[in-house]
Amino acid sequence: MSDRVREILSWYSHRNAGVRTSLYRMLMHGRIGGTGKMVILPVDQGFEHGPLRSFLPNEPGFDPAYHPQLALDAGCNAFAAPLGFIEIAADKFGGQLPLILKVNSHDVLHDDSDPIPAITSSVADALELGCSGVGFTIYPGSEMREEMYEQLREVIEETHSVGLAAVVWSYPRGEDLQKDDETAVDIACYAAQIAAQMGADIIKVKPPKKHVAQSANAKVIEETGASIETLADRVRLVIKSAFNGTRIVIFSGGAKGSDENVLDEIRGLAEGGAFGSIMGRNAFQRKHDDAVKLLHKVMDIHTGSGK
Amino acid sequence: MSDRVREILSWYSHRNAGVRTSLYRMLMHGRIGGTGKMVILPVDQGFEHGPLRSFLPNEPGFDPAYHPQLALDAGCNAFAAPLGFIEIAADKFGGQLPLILKVNSHDVLHDDSDPIPAITSSVADALELGCSGVGFTIYPGSEMREEMYEQLREVIEETHSVGLAAVVWSYPRGEDLQKDDETAVDIACYAAQIAAQMGADIIKVKPPKKHVAQSANAKVIEETGASIETLADRVRLVIKSAFNGTRIVIFSGGAKGSDENVLDEIRGLAEGGAFGSIMGRNAFQRKHDDAVKLLHKVMDIHTGSGK
Amino acid sequence: MSDRVREILSWYSHRNAGVRTSLYRMLMHGRIGGTGKMVILPVDQGFEHGPLRSFLPNEPGFDPAYHPQLALDAGCNAFAAPLGFIEIAADKFGGQLPLILKVNSHDVLHDDSDPIPAITSSVADALELGCSGVGFTIYPGSEMREEMYEQLREVIEETHSVGLAAVVWSYPRGEDLQKDDETAVDIACYAAQIAAQMGADIIKVKPPKKHVAQSANAKVIEETGASIETLADRVRLVIKSAFNGTRIVIFSGGAKGSDENVLDEIRGLAEGGAFGSIMGRNAFQRKHDDAVKLLHKVMDIHTGSGK
Amino acid sequence: MSDRVREILSWYSHRNAGVRTSLYRMLMHGRIGGTGKMVILPVDQGFEHGPLRSFLPNEPGFDPAYHPQLALDAGCNAFAAPLGFIEIAADKFGGQLPLILKVNSHDVLHDDSDPIPAITSSVADALELGCSGVGFTIYPGSEMREEMYEQLREVIEETHSVGLAAVVWSYPRGEDLQKDDETAVDIACYAAQIAAQMGADIIKVKPPKKHVAQSANAKVIEETGASIETLADRVRLVIKSAFNGTRIVIFSGGAKGSDENVLDEIRGLAEGGAFGSIMGRNAFQRKHDDAVKLLHKVMDIHTGSGK
Amino acid sequence: MSDRVREILSWYSHRNAGVRTSLYRMLMHGRIGGTGKMVILPVDQGFEHGPLRSFLPNEPGFDPAYHPQLALDAGCNAFAAPLGFIEIAADKFGGQLPLILKVNSHDVLHDDSDPIPAITSSVADALELGCSGVGFTIYPGSEMREEMYEQLREVIEETHSVGLAAVVWSYPRGEDLQKDDETAVDIACYAAQIAAQMGADIIKVKPPKKHVAQSANAKVIEETGASIETLADRVRLVIKSAFNGTRIVIFSGGAKGSDENVLDEIRGLAEGGAFGSIMGRNAFQRKHDDAVKLLHKVMDIHTGSGK
Repeated sequence: MSDRVREILSWYSHRNAGVRTSLYRMLMHGRIGGTGKMVILPVDQGFEHGPLRSFLPNEPGFDPAYHPQLALDAGCNAFAAPLGFIEIAADKFGGQLPLILKVNSHDVLHDDSDPIPAITSSVADALELGCSGVGFTIYPGSEMREEMYEQLREVIEETHSVGLAAVVWSYPRGEDLQKDDETAVDIACYAAQIAAQMGADIIKVKPPKKHVAQSANAKVIEETGASIETLADRVRLVIKSAFNGTRIVIFSGGAKGSDENVLDEIRGLAEGGAFGSIMGRNAFQRKHDDAVKLLHKVMDIHTGSGK
Repeated sequence: MSDRVREILSWYSHRNAGVRTSLYRMLMHGRIGGTGKMVILPVDQGFEHGPLRSFLPNEPGFDPAYHPQLALDAGCNAFAAPLGFIEIAADKFGGQLPLILKVNSHDVLHDDSDPIPAITSSVADALELGCSGVGFTIYPGSEMREEMYEQLREVIEETHSVGLAAVVWSYPRGEDLQKDDETAVDIACYAAQIAAQMGADIIKVKPPKKHVAQSANAKVIEETGASIETLADRVRLVIKSAFNGTRIVIFSGGAKGSDENVLDEIRGLAEGGAFGSIMGRNAFQRKHDDAVKLLHKVMDIHTGSGK
Repeated sequence: MSDRVREILSWYSHRNAGVRTSLYRMLMHGRIGGTGKMVILPVDQGFEHGPLRSFLPNEPGFDPAYHPQLALDAGCNAFAAPLGFIEIAADKFGGQLPLILKVNSHDVLHDDSDPIPAITSSVADALELGCSGVGFTIYPGSEMREEMYEQLREVIEETHSVGLAAVVWSYPRGEDLQKDDETAVDIACYAAQIAAQMGADIIKVKPPKKHVAQSANAKVIEETGASIETLADRVRLVIKSAFNGTRIVIFSGGAKGSDENVLDEIRGLAEGGAFGSIMGRNAFQRKHDDAVKLLHKVMDIHTGSGK
Repeated sequence: MSDRVREILSWYSHRNAGVRTSLYRMLMHGRIGGTGKMVILPVDQGFEHGPLRSFLPNEPGFDPAYHPQLALDAGCNAFAAPLGFIEIAADKFGGQLPLILKVNSHDVLHDDSDPIPAITSSVADALELGCSGVGFTIYPGSEMREEMYEQLREVIEETHSVGLAAVVWSYPRGEDLQKDDETAVDIACYAAQIAAQMGADIIKVKPPKKHVAQSANAKVIEETGASIETLADRVRLVIKSAFNGTRIVIFSGGAKGSDENVLDEIRGLAEGGAFGSIMGRNAFQRKHDDAVKLLHKVMDIHTGSGK
Repeated sequence: MSDRVREILSWYSHRNAGVRTSLYRMLMHGRIGGTGKMVILPVDQGFEHGPLRSFLPNEPGFDPAYHPQLALDAGCNAFAAPLGFIEIAADKFGGQLPLILKVNSHDVLHDDSDPIPAITSSVADALELGCSGVGFTIYPGSEMREEMYEQLREVIEETHSVGLAAVVWSYPRGEDLQKDDETAVDIACYAAQIAAQMGADIIKVKPPKKHVAQSANAKVIEETGASIETLADRVRLVIKSAFNGTRIVIFSGGAKGSDENVLDEIRGLAEGGAFGSIMGRNAFQRKHDDAVKLLHKVMDIHTGSGK
């Protein structure tokens, strides 16, 4: 175990040995294992956005086995997906890479102003499939958030009780949030704080924008002179909001963009102290070899060996 | 066991032996057993549409025992129906043909813009009645879909745990979908993907139309040049969306039409690689012998011995 | 056991011996026991309509013990009521006549456009009280019907598991049904079909009127030339819709009317093959001896010994 | 045991010995024990109306121990209150007077057009606290009544199973009832009937007014010539509606009024055959000695020793 | 044990020894242990208001470990927070100061006119973390209050059964309450009464304002001449409303204000007989040493050693 991983795990001393073992497996696995940084491949877009817009850009992606193979080839720390995909990943690649089962899912076939995902699998499924982590999405801002938080707490409690790590996608969304507010820096900080308070071990948020959504936060930012100018500045605040940097916070990669745009954003995240990235569409919608190359560059920036 | 059935079952290696045995029974049963194709007789219209419009066109159909006899006479792979009918089919024809118990049902006595069927029987009922499969309908697109998905996941988990096969009717419907959208190619693909991600073993969808419902999908179809021109083209996309063709996808037969119209559609399905058909009204609303003849022609087209 | 009762019970061969024993008890009891016809006294109007309009017309009816005595005196096949009344009937007349506990109830103190009754007692209560049957009301057509069907399925499953008979009041009602539609012939057929599919042993519907509610049904009636002209014609269709006449279907008596009007309707029911009547207000709102006389005439018409 | 109490208990022969023992304890306790009449002190107004308007008029009432002492001093048959008060009453006066735990409560901090109380304690609490009865409020007329009835049935079943008496506050209320309708004679009768059908042992209703709320009831009252002129007439109808006088029906005392107004109403109740009163604000909002005097007069009128 | 603590505990004689032990621990701990007064540090604002406005004013507050250290340094009676913070407090300071786990939480990311917090942890969590108390927030006045009361009752029952103390934040809020009404004296009294009736051991309310929200209360205040002029007057009424002063009632400190404003309010509370304060933002948003000084002054005023 590297010193950095040992340090990170020390922040989780109140978790049982099983949870820390699961975190260890993800932190030590793959091309950047041991650096304390993580790059995870998530493929839940078939459910979340639909299969055509997700997989037509790179047709091998229709095959569930393609993705864990890509994660292995690129040396990602883990592969995350809903039940159907993880069943196949576990069957074909069991033990070869850490798996995260996303136990709730949402589609875009109905326009929900205040969405809540469906529970589509369970912690028991994750155990049977040999996973290291259990993934759960919350939408802070939705009128249904209270129900999601209660579901999340139950899932985390069970996840921890069986020695797995809880990975929380914390995506602000709901009728009282404008589109801009969803990635506002104060809202991103809030999303990270809530996940941490609920017991998340790894927190996934979107890269925070310069916009501030709530006036009380704008006021305190002005009064205290806190800087939110650069992405790095904002990432720093998000990470502070996750228990002063003692929770692993990783950032999502967003829709497919050019290599340079993607890497620019990664540089900002890395400078702000992000623990890594969770990058789906920018990986599996590229040709296999291009995806591996891009993921390697992302890893290098996060670990400081690229820039 | 034929090679093709062996190949199909290999896609389900992550299911337990009981589930694979149940799939085997359906794949090997009847006139086209062993070809890897399936033609199933479903009779849930008494509940779903009402008895008069369902059975007056061919009055012997009022008798629950008529339908499993028809399935036997035509050599169908299985018979699917709600509890009341299956209780009688199991009592009179137990063991003679594979049965699929539909455990949820919906009627048309109330105009539900966002429908959800009622749970009207259970996996335990299916076991007691000697069934090989458990059927469940979801309406992706309904505001109630999250609840349906959660019910479905529970049903599939229990179905698999007792070694039965999970058969999912995935019918997009809901206030945010126009009538045309319900059979749009992108929505049909989405419906197949969701069922597969939830753990369905056999997926039933409607034949996809050329219409594309969501602009993001229209865009990606245009950009990638994916063909949706013919029914066969569209069926291919649906089957790709069901884990790249590694899930059994069958197509519904729709309202009663002329023999030629019915068979034309079957030809398109077969050309696109459909695993078969599930044909109710076009079977039981015809006179017995006409129904048997038509079903045989459908089977022949699917297996390639007719055209 | 008479041949007719033996024949009727043969339709229930898929039920356990306990259920068939309970049906036997009701079919063999009372003045027309053994004929295969049933006349049941139901007294749920105290709850469903209120005590004043129910019992002021014949004040002895305020006394819970009055009604089972009336059922005994008239030789009815069974007495049906909610918990409070059955507790007293069982205490005073236990074993002397078959009892049916109605386990859900609805009042008219709130105007529910889409009603659902409350669960007011249980199958366990029915067992403790020595009942032969469990009664349950559904309102097909109500937006709440899915919930009712799920409740009904649970009640029927438990009822059968303890060897009692399931008696279903299937009364179409709801905001999408016009007042006329509630007794339309196609809707009555639909109501009978749903109850049968759910596992009902005895089905109670209202006498069907000549009105057809749904255009798809009007069309098929016209195309097939099915006759709905006389009450007898319509009753025949309802009984066909209950698994081709293999479920016991009885008809409700409605509000208090003149003897002749009541008996006219009974003649139509009998001619159409009804299995009997369930007659409350026309019995207990008459003076005791008048009620006995009328009930005897009803029985005679159903068994063919009167006309 | 007095003959009258023996007679009353004979109406409950279908209840177990435990329930009859609990009824016996309340019927035999206090100043009018053995007469078959009951005067109960209820103090739930702190929760139902708020502490200031309830206890400022007689400040010792802020003290939870004041009320059971008052009930003892006046020789009431029982003391009824929510959990917080009963915990203290049981602790200080355990065994000295029968206690009734009100297990649901409602406040006036939100204007509910269709109210439902919260479940605030349990039958298990009642047992631990040595209570003789369990109190439950229903609002027939509320859109939420179905849920209340289901809760009530569960509570009564459990109450009876542990040998306690079920005391039901049946207070019509809801958006479809005008203010006047809540105490209309037909609605009061209906409220009593529903409670009786649900299994209530003691039923509390408000004194019925001459108003008739539902036209069907007005019609039957006119046709049958039933008298509703005097309070006594109306009380007689309410008591008839509670299983022809075989359930204990007591009447609430309402807001604080002058001694004469209070006693006038009691005379009407007594003349109509009421089994007693349940009087809160007219007791605890008077000075202690005035309250005792008034309660004694109420008792004397009910037992016929005063007028 | 001091005499005052012994007296306070005597009011809880109906609680088990475990609950009284937990109360004892909090009453005897810290700088003012044994005086019968309590000053508690609560830090739930990261969840309730968001991390930026909560912790930017004093950045060390981002660190979860900062707060229990502050509570220890100032000699507070207890530290209260949601799960994430308590997990760290328990891990680092276990046994050194009494902990209160807040088991429900609410955020401000959606504008709920009738709010209800989410259940975010459990009594079992409190036990595992070595807590002395379980905290729960109710919003009397919310349309959802019935559900909250039912949750609260379950939590209190379980809390007491494992020997912990129940601490209730009773904050009137909801669409039928104007902003002013939330702190109106009659509403504050009502909030305290409800918490007491539900079984709360320690009740937290906001300092009551002179405003009276409900006309029935205004009337009774006028008629009885009850004084609500000074904060001390109003605090007296609130404490009377909590079972005549036999429940521990503490008051919240509100948003950050100047030292003098804060201390003025504390003087009013102390004069009215408050049992203490629960002060968050005025503590952790000041620099550490300023916070300790202010908390000491607050303690001194409550115990009468400052003014």
